Parts: sequence; structure tokens; C-alpha cells
Amino acid sequence: MKIAVLGTGDVGRQLATKLVALGHQVTLGSRSADHEGATAWAAENDAAHGTFATAAAGAELVVNATGGMVSLAALEAAGAENLAGKVLVDVSNPLDFSEGFPPKVATPDGASLAEQIQRTFPGARVVKTLNTMTNTVMVDPARVPGDHVVFVCGDDAEAKETVTALLASFGWPKPRIIDLGDLSGARGTELVLPLWLRLMGTLGTGDFNFAIQRA
Amino acid sequence: MKIAVLGTGDVGRQLATKLVALGHQVTLGSRSADHEGATAWAAENDAAHGTFATAAAGAELVVNATGGMVSLAALEAAGAENLAGKVLVDVSNPLDFSEGFPPKVATPDGASLAEQIQRTFPGARVVKTLNTMTNTVMVDPARVPGDHVVFVCGDDAEAKETVTALLASFGWPKPRIIDLGDLSGARGTELVLPLWLRLMGTLGTGDFNFAIQRA
Repeated sequence: MKIAVLGTGDVGRQLATKLVALGHQVTLGSRSADHEGATAWAAENDAAHGTFATAAAGAELVVNATGGMVSLAALEAAGAENLAGKVLVDVSNPLDFSEGFPPKVATPDGASLAEQIQRTFPGARVVKTLNTMTNTVMVDPARVPGDHVVFVCGDDAEAKETVTALLASFGWPKPRIIDLGDLSGARGTELVLPLWLRLMGTLGTGDFNFAIQRA
Repeated sequence: MKIAVLGTGDVGRQLATKLVALGHQVTLGSRSADHEGATAWAAENDAAHGTFATAAAGAELVVNATGGMVSLAALEAAGAENLAGKVLVDVSNPLDFSEGFPPKVATPDGASLAEQIQRTFPGARVVKTLNTMTNTVMVDPARVPGDHVVFVCGDDAEAKETVTALLASFGWPKPRIIDLGDLSGARGTELVLPLWLRLMGTLGTGDFNFAIQRA
């Protein structure tokens, strides 16, 4: 599949590298066409890079791996016309560090960032997933033993199926991909970040994940 | 130990009943001295009931199991002088249902309810715990198989030890009692509620709990 990964941080590069390894045709999107990190990554991985708009325009599926506080601006730069009709996988977290650490989760009017993205780009088929774990676990769930889970939610059932298949190709067993229903489920998964960050401090590592155990 | 459980809802009664079974001298506290449910519970359990103030005054340890949106008022009624120097176990969640379901988590200025309680009653030794699961799991962790966890946090190390011992008496193995540090950790555990409520809908039961799995 032709996939654009928007965002050149750890999360974006990790996802892009995995997608290349799985045989997808990946373009890493960044603010500028000559972004140093993106250029280096593309050369190393025999893949492409370009602006947010170039990357999104050529893609069938777009991953938003930009920082949550700048995601709306990055997607605006990508262009609504380049997102229309496409599956938009949102893995970002709206963490506001303006008052230092720990950050607050920015949820104006109680809406998640994923819902704000869907509202701003009604033509995109937004699916929220993977935002509740560190990037190494996202693409290699087996590195953490146990029956830990990944959440998906979104308003478009077919888009969720596409994303679920992608997660399965990352190594997520189907019973551990939990469908939380429509996109408002992202309110729950985004608000988990303060506990996640606290646990990272307590455990001294981000190399963990949540499991749900039932009676 | 002489324990006051403030709040006569499912959570308060469940905790009070367990504490009676463990041999503690329990007073269930409610808004009025002639509260019907509290009177019935006390008769059934050979325990006491009284107003928030009466219950707190006679107790060595106080449990806040009132609804999170009225907890500050309930504790005001209990009286700062009746909380001073005592361990105050806060198990409540500030869920604002004023705009319907799902509720929002009320965290004015980003502070948790537990921190607001500590700020309002500086003499109390507040420990936040048990608010991330349903009441039946709180007092009987074995009903859910696996290595699921309970979080504790608070500013007073000795108070946390007291609460950890109480949790152990409920059946929580020590390695599954996760100390998140000071009371600001409650920001994380209170904000988990939107995901918890969503999962309750998805799974069709509240009879589950979170586990943390590590690499």
C-alpha cells in the first residue's frame, strides 16, 4: 500500500521503518521538503520523503504521527483535498507541555484530538489507535510478554478493518485489538497518558503496556 | 481499627462490609443520622451508622466513598477537626454527569480531586487508591484472574503504608500494589475513568481490571 507517515519524530520513524519492512511504499512527510532527519531516514530505508502535502497526496493511507499540539496545523498543511476519502490513522497525543512536565492532555470542550481532526477534515476516515504505548511496542508487541492490548476506534467501520489488518501485520493478535466503537472512544485513550507517563517514571521504563483482565 | 466509611452507595457499602468482615469497628457515615440505607446496612452488619461528622469523629481512619462531585461538601460536613491527623483514603472519582453520559472528569486547574481534598484539609493524610476498578474487585481482587493492579499515591509515606497493609488484607498481593508516588499521581488514575467506562460498555461488564505488563 502507498502510505504517508506524517511526522519525523521517534514515533513517525519507527512506524515508517516498520511499514517499509512490511513491503509498503512509504513516504515520510515533514514540514519542509529538505528536512534533514527525513532525508537521512529515506536514504537509509530506500524510501521517500517530502512535505506533508506531497506525502499525503501520493498516499492511499495517511498516518498522523506529528506532535498532538501541532497535528491540526500539520494536517492543514497536508491539505484537506489530500486526505479526503483516505484512512487517516491518528496515533498522536495532545500533550500540552506549556507549563512543564507532566503535561496536561488538551481536550477542549471534552473532545479528543482525534474527534477534532475528524471535525476539521470531514472527508478523512479517522481511526485512533496505538497512542497508549511507546513506539517500540507499537510495531513489535511481542517485545512485551503477556496479553496486553491495543485500542482502535473510529466512525468508519471499513477504515477500522483496514487499520486492524495493519495492526495484525505488526504482530497484534486479533483478540488483543480492542474495538472501542466510534471515535469518541479516543477521549478515553488520550486521557490515559497522564497515568502512562506516571508509570514510566515509577517503572523507570516506557517498555510496558496495559492489559485488561476479566472475571 | 476504628474506621469511618463516608458514603452509602455501592462502593461505600461494599468497603464497609469488607472492613466489618475483617474485624474492624466500622461506622457508615451519611448526610443524616436517620439515613434509611445506612440504618439497614448497620443492622444487617452489626455495625454503626451516623452523620459524616459522628462517623469521622470516632474513627482512626476515614474512607471517602462519596460521589466525587460532592466529596468536598461531604468532607466539610465531616469537619476538618475530625479529619486532622487521620489517614483519609480517597476512592472517589470526580465524574461530572451534568451533560449526561459519558461523564467528564472534573479536574479544575489540572488538579485531581484527591489533591483538592488534601489542599482543603491540610491536616488529613490523603491516600488515593482503588478508584480505577469496580467495587466488587476492590474488596475481592481474586475474582478477576491475572496480575491486575491497584494504584496508591499520597504525600505521607506512613499513611501509604497503612493503606497498603489494608489493601493486602483485602487480598491484594504486594507486587500488585503500585505506588505512584505523591498525591499528584491521582491525576493519572482519575483520568483513567473515561477509558474504564468505555471498556465497561465494550466488554458488557465492569468486572475487569487493568494490568501493567513489562518487557
